[in-house]
Amino acid sequence: MNFADIIIKKKNNCELTKEEIEYFVDSVVKKTVPDYQISALLMAIAINSMSDRETAELTKAMTCSGNVLDLSDIKGIKTDKHSTGGVGDTTTLVLAPLTASLGLPVIKMSGRGLGHTGGTLDKLESIPGFSVSIPIDRAIEQVNKKGIVIMGQTEDLDPADKYLYALRDVTGTVESLPLIASSIMSKKLAAGADAIVLDVKTGKGAFMKNVEDAVRLADTMIRTAKAMDRKVTALVTDMNEPLGLNIGNSLEVIEAIEILKNRREGRLKEVSLALGAEMLVLGRIAENTEEAMALLERNIANGKGLEKLGELIEIQGGDPKVINDYSLFPQPKAEYELEAEEEGYVYSINCYDIGRASLNTGAGRAAKESPIDYSAGIIMHKKVGDTVKKGDVIAEVFSANIEKCIVSAEIIKNAVVISSERPEKRKLIYEVLR
Amino acid sequence: MNFADIIIKKKNNCELTKEEIEYFVDSVVKKTVPDYQISALLMAIAINSMSDRETAELTKAMTCSGNVLDLSDIKGIKTDKHSTGGVGDTTTLVLAPLTASLGLPVIKMSGRGLGHTGGTLDKLESIPGFSVSIPIDRAIEQVNKKGIVIMGQTEDLDPADKYLYALRDVTGTVESLPLIASSIMSKKLAAGADAIVLDVKTGKGAFMKNVEDAVRLADTMIRTAKAMDRKVTALVTDMNEPLGLNIGNSLEVIEAIEILKNRREGRLKEVSLALGAEMLVLGRIAENTEEAMALLERNIANGKGLEKLGELIEIQGGDPKVINDYSLFPQPKAEYELEAEEEGYVYSINCYDIGRASLNTGAGRAAKESPIDYSAGIIMHKKVGDTVKKGDVIAEVFSANIEKCIVSAEIIKNAVVISSERPEKRKLIYEVLR
Repeated sequence: MNFADIIIKKKNNCELTKEEIEYFVDSVVKKTVPDYQISALLMAIAINSMSDRETAELTKAMTCSGNVLDLSDIKGIKTDKHSTGGVGDTTTLVLAPLTASLGLPVIKMSGRGLGHTGGTLDKLESIPGFSVSIPIDRAIEQVNKKGIVIMGQTEDLDPADKYLYALRDVTGTVESLPLIASSIMSKKLAAGADAIVLDVKTGKGAFMKNVEDAVRLADTMIRTAKAMDRKVTALVTDMNEPLGLNIGNSLEVIEAIEILKNRREGRLKEVSLALGAEMLVLGRIAENTEEAMALLERNIANGKGLEKLGELIEIQGGDPKVINDYSLFPQPKAEYELEAEEEGYVYSINCYDIGRASLNTGAGRAAKESPIDYSAGIIMHKKVGDTVKKGDVIAEVFSANIEKCIVSAEIIKNAVVISSERPEKRKLIYEVLR
Repeated sequence: MNFADIIIKKKNNCELTKEEIEYFVDSVVKKTVPDYQISALLMAIAINSMSDRETAELTKAMTCSGNVLDLSDIKGIKTDKHSTGGVGDTTTLVLAPLTASLGLPVIKMSGRGLGHTGGTLDKLESIPGFSVSIPIDRAIEQVNKKGIVIMGQTEDLDPADKYLYALRDVTGTVESLPLIASSIMSKKLAAGADAIVLDVKTGKGAFMKNVEDAVRLADTMIRTAKAMDRKVTALVTDMNEPLGLNIGNSLEVIEAIEILKNRREGRLKEVSLALGAEMLVLGRIAENTEEAMALLERNIANGKGLEKLGELIEIQGGDPKVINDYSLFPQPKAEYELEAEEEGYVYSINCYDIGRASLNTGAGRAAKESPIDYSAGIIMHKKVGDTVKKGDVIAEVFSANIEKCIVSAEIIKNAVVISSERPEKRKLIYEVLR
C-alpha cells in the first residue's frame, strides 16, 4: 500500500477502506511515514470529512494502536464520561462518587488542565496526600473493593491519538468532526469503557462556539458508536458562563463537596446529575432517567455520595478530613474582592475570559509543564441574570500575591457585563442525543 | 503572523490576503516552518482551491522568491512557450528557430526528460558538442547577436517552486489548478518572459487525461495572467498518440530538421506552427495568426528556419553538419522492426505505453540521475487511422542491444490496437484560449 495514494483518494473525497485506515494508523504509530504526509491526509479528512463507517474504522484502529485495558475482572457495565472541557466544570467530582455510591463501577481516567480549562487530576491533587498515579492492577482491585478510582491515563494507551493530536494542533486540523470523535472515543474505548456519556460544551468558553456545531459533533459520536455497536449518550450543555461558581483547583473540590452535602443547587449540580443519570441508565443501574435522577438526589440527601467521596480520598492517600475542614486545603496568600461599580443585571459573563483570569491567578497551566497553585482561583458571587447593586461583591479572587489578584479582577471586570436590561433566560441543557 | 492561522483560514475556504500568501512563500524559502504545516496548507489549497487574485498573488510571490532575470537588454517582447509534457513532443526544436528567424527574441530555458516524457535539453545534447550550460550574461549576448538561445534553467530561479513541487509530489497535492498554474507561470516569469504560450496536453499520454480538465487548467492560467496584467495564450492539444513519429533524443532532433527542411507534414508540424503563430502574435511580429502562419510557412519554404537552427547549434558548440548528415549523431548498436501480424486500421495507440517503451530503449530517464542513450528510441511507421497490411512495419526500435529492442517492441505491439473498424477522426487542437 502506498501512503500517497491514500492521501489522493481522500483528497478526491472518496471513502477509504478498512485496510487503508489501518495502514494509516499503523504508519503513524510505527513512524514509517513522514509528518508532512500525515498532515496532508489529516487536512484532506478535515475538509472532506469521513463517513460513519470510516470514522468507526478509524476509532477502532486508534483504539488498538496501543494497549486496550481488560476490565473484565470488574463486574458491571463500565460507563465512562467525557467532557469537551469548560470553565468551573467539575461534574466528575460530583457524579463519580455519586454514581459509585449507587453501584456503578467507576474507573475513571482523567486529564490535567491546559489553557483556560481545568483538569480533574489537578483538582484532586489539591487534596493533601491525594495520588492519581495508580497501576492498572491496583486500580481494578480498588474498584472491586470501593467501587471507584480516579487516576491518570496509563502511558501506553492510544499512542496514535497522542501523535495525531499533537500534529493536528499545529496544522489547523483540530476542528474536524470525525477526527474529534475518533480521538475521544478511541481513548475511552482503550481505557476499557463499555459505554460513554458525552458532555459536549457549547458557548463562549467552549471549543464548540455554537449549538449547531456541538449537536453535529454529538451526532457524529452517536453514529460512530452505532457503527461500532457501542452505546453513547451525548448531552449538549451551555458554557457561555462558568458552570459552577468556583473556578480553581481546591475551590472546585469544595464546590463539589458542597453539592454532595446538599447545600448547593444550581447549574453545576444540574448538569452533573443529568450526566450521572445517563450513566446510571447506560450502566443498567436505573431503568430510565427519571428513576436515575431520584436515586442520585436520594444519595445526596442521605449523604451516601459524600461518604463515597471520602472513601475515594482516603484510599488514594488523601486526607478525608478536608471534607469537613476546608482549611486543610492549601491556603491562598492573597485575596481580593471585585465590587460592582454600577447597578443592573448581570447581562453576560465572558466565560473564556473568566478562564483566562483563573489561569492568571496561578490556578491553571499556560504550558504543559507549568506548575499549579492549588489554592488560587475565583469564586463568582454573581451569575447571569442576577441583580447587582453598586458595591456588591461580583467575585473573590485568590492568588499568591495581591498584584496577580488585581490583574485577574480586572479581567473579570471586563468579562462581566452589567446592564439595565435583563438577559433572556438561556437553556442549560440544549439537547440529549441517545 | 501565525502560519497555523493561515492554514485554518484556507481550511475554512476563506480567501488569503496578499500578506498571508507572501508570508507563506517566504516561510517556505527561508525554511521557517516545518514541512507538515506546508503540506497541510497545500492540501487545503488543493481541495478548496484559490481565487484568481490569490493564484496571481501566489504566482507573484513565487516568482520573486529567488532571482528574476532582467532581460531588458534584449529588444522585443520575450515570449516563452511551455508544454505540460508529452511523447514525441518536440515542438520547441521546430518553433524556436522558426520564430527566431522571423525576429522574435528566443531565450528559452528548457528542462530534462523524466519518466515517459522527454526533455528539450537532452534532445539537444544528442548533437555532438552541443552545450546547454550558458551563463545568463552570455545568453543575453547570444540572443542579441543570433536571436536565439536554448539553455538549462539558472540555479537561483524560483526556489519556492522547487521546494513546493517536491513536497506536492509526495503529499497528493500535484493535481491542483492554482498550484499547477502558479508553478508554471512563476518559473516562466522568473525567467524573464513578457508573455507565455501554453501547450496543455490532454489524453492518455498527458498529465490531464481529459479535455475538460485541460481546458480548466488553461482557463486558470489565462485568468491568473489577466489578474497579473500578463498575456497568456493557451492551446489544448491532443496527446492520445505520440505527437511526432520519432521518439527519442537524436531521433526527435532529426524529425524537427525534416520539418524545417519542408520534407515532413503532420501532427508535430501542425502543433508547432500553431504554437509558433501565437508566439508571433503575442510578440507583435504578426498582426494575427493567419499572417503568422504564412510567415512560418514561408520561413520553412525558404530555409530560413533551418538556417537559424544551424546558427543555434554552431554558437552553442554543436556540430551543424548533423543537419545534412544524420550519421554524425550517436548511432544505435541494435535495431529491430516490429511488423504487423494482422491487417486493418490502427484504431488507437496508447501514448503512455509508447513513452514507456521509449524509456525502456534507454532514451529516457527512470530516475532523475539516470544516464541517457541519445541514439535510442522509436520511429513509428504508423499513426492512428492508417491502414495496415500483414507484415507492414509498425515501428523501428533502436537501443544498445537487441534484447532491449525486443522488450520495447513488445510494449509497442500491445500499445497499438489494430482493428477492422476505422477510428473516428480526432481533433489535434481542441481549443485555443486567449
